[in-house]
Amino acid sequence: MTDRKIQQLKFDRKMMRNSLRLAKKGCGFVAPNPLVGATIIKNGKIIGEGYHQKFGEAHAEINAINNATESVQDATIYVSLEPCSHQGKTPACSLALIQNGFKRVVIASLDPNPLVSGNGVKMLKQAGIEVEVGILEKEALTLNERFFKFIQTRKPFIAIKMATSLDGKIATFSGDSKWITNEKSRTFAHRLRLQYSSILVGINTVITDDPNLNVRLKNTKVKNPLRIILDSKLQIPLKSKILNISIAPTWIATTKQSPSIKIKQLENLGVKVLVCPKKEGKIDLNFLTEKLGNEGIDSLLVEGGGTVNFSFAKEKLVDKVYAFIAPKLIGGKSAKTGMEGDGFASLSEVIELKNLSYKRIKNDLLIEAYT
Amino acid sequence: MTDRKIQQLKFDRKMMRNSLRLAKKGCGFVAPNPLVGATIIKNGKIIGEGYHQKFGEAHAEINAINNATESVQDATIYVSLEPCSHQGKTPACSLALIQNGFKRVVIASLDPNPLVSGNGVKMLKQAGIEVEVGILEKEALTLNERFFKFIQTRKPFIAIKMATSLDGKIATFSGDSKWITNEKSRTFAHRLRLQYSSILVGINTVITDDPNLNVRLKNTKVKNPLRIILDSKLQIPLKSKILNISIAPTWIATTKQSPSIKIKQLENLGVKVLVCPKKEGKIDLNFLTEKLGNEGIDSLLVEGGGTVNFSFAKEKLVDKVYAFIAPKLIGGKSAKTGMEGDGFASLSEVIELKNLSYKRIKNDLLIEAYT
Repeated sequence: MTDRKIQQLKFDRKMMRNSLRLAKKGCGFVAPNPLVGATIIKNGKIIGEGYHQKFGEAHAEINAINNATESVQDATIYVSLEPCSHQGKTPACSLALIQNGFKRVVIASLDPNPLVSGNGVKMLKQAGIEVEVGILEKEALTLNERFFKFIQTRKPFIAIKMATSLDGKIATFSGDSKWITNEKSRTFAHRLRLQYSSILVGINTVITDDPNLNVRLKNTKVKNPLRIILDSKLQIPLKSKILNISIAPTWIATTKQSPSIKIKQLENLGVKVLVCPKKEGKIDLNFLTEKLGNEGIDSLLVEGGGTVNFSFAKEKLVDKVYAFIAPKLIGGKSAKTGMEGDGFASLSEVIELKNLSYKRIKNDLLIEAYT
Repeated sequence: MTDRKIQQLKFDRKMMRNSLRLAKKGCGFVAPNPLVGATIIKNGKIIGEGYHQKFGEAHAEINAINNATESVQDATIYVSLEPCSHQGKTPACSLALIQNGFKRVVIASLDPNPLVSGNGVKMLKQAGIEVEVGILEKEALTLNERFFKFIQTRKPFIAIKMATSLDGKIATFSGDSKWITNEKSRTFAHRLRLQYSSILVGINTVITDDPNLNVRLKNTKVKNPLRIILDSKLQIPLKSKILNISIAPTWIATTKQSPSIKIKQLENLGVKVLVCPKKEGKIDLNFLTEKLGNEGIDSLLVEGGGTVNFSFAKEKLVDKVYAFIAPKLIGGKSAKTGMEGDGFASLSEVIELKNLSYKRIKNDLLIEAYT
């Protein structure tokens, strides 16, 4: 590669990094659309930036064009996802790029939807625009991993979040769990919630902790995700904080064995009750997650306890695991761990994770991995 | 700092790294002495290398001088630990450096023994030799952390080794534990054993796994560490592999409640039985570890299971933890974890670890941390 080409590649990566940064600003507001950012360059300078801000509103490219401080004729645009080629809620972005006279379009990743993937690029090329695909592709794929699974399968992307000590405990034997991980990890965990359309916990967590499951972040405009509770017998106390739907909607998955009067009471509070079939005495999670997909829920963050976490693992429904590990030793044969239930009997059956990455959060460690 | 000084520092670090590399070759053979390596430089070239090879034999500096390919007059020597200033089993190394006409002595760390620390440096300086201390000091302190604790406290440096899944399990609920971590991690764990004078397990591990607890490494000359078993009632089967002392010595810590005939049988096999007082119904680990110190055991690697590991944690006897974490999800409320026992009741009592470092071993992760 010549020096000039290396310099160009470096510059392209820098600009695409900017587009990815912009894309993230839409977090929590665009689902089930993908996060997309765009940066417009002319004569080596940024003249326009934009991102997809809200579901149903303008795409990143259009916002960047509208924000441009000078004519975008002959400019280069860095988009983190292939511009769309079809009229949807908004006009096709590829067409807008052609009409605005862009000279070069740099794309991080193609559209994952097999029906339209490559069409945007084709349209641009046919119009004589120079197109480059694959700059920071991995980062772009990770950024929209939830969207990509959903668009291809119509099932939600499911992640499990665990926060444990170095010896795998989520609480002491007496139930003390506040807090195992450090403050920065907990803030990070709140930021995670922003990336998911829904959060799920089991009824035991609701009874024990009475959580809000909202997103608590200073100085950040947030949209609280949908809260889902697994509660096969509808044991939930009617005074639970999570039943206050002024913060965010709440859905409860249950089974036919629940009394219809309790269902009525919950519905009167504005809660949606999903009556699911049973599988081995528990809520059939395959049914539930398909149902969520049908309702347009693109992603689900499972926040345990251990029994619920393992139910998802057992059904092989997990796409990703976030394990926050604090450098503490808690001990205790009866102290709860992040994955309980029956467990797998043999090591040949256990879930093996791939594509690991590690991030240090002060003295804690966050391990992210995929099934 | 001038360019010349930066170049010199870079060179010094490189040479000290070589001395640390040499020092490690003595691993398993020099305890309770420290690991020390030495590199001699003249006109920018290595003319001699040496390390402390075996307890009671020549120190690193002397071996390096003896291995030198030309006169060491006016040379520089890089030693990973302050040269000794006193006649011990061998003559004082500082004197040898003076007599051999060295011009410059570069030292990674001072001798930790407060009675002699700095004396070697003083002797060299008084003889007009240029002395520099602190190059790669942290690495040198870590290399001999076992020795440093022992020399200062006369108690062994105690580390716990755990190998768990990402959800903290050391086996499935049915007891399948071979293997959770990958082959490279297990080789690394064998190399760890080399660094410790003794390995300790509980009687349950002996009964369940019938381990040899030796060091299994291809193409490496090894000295198997002393094997210690906690067995308060002397339940050990006389046919256990670990009672074959032709591989390595075996000591069993027990209490007075053990039948004297079993003690006799074990002693006839060449096993040393340490009768210890009880504390809360178990072997008093404070007594045991002091006893080990008195016997010259400078370091102890505790390899669990969870009950034994927690006993050491509870008594605040742990200096270091090695946690190998495999990216697997095992689950199971009754699956064993790396730290069991009663556990700490409150998060304010748990053991907080410091000075963390992380190492990726293929897809596994090794976390090392200190209490």
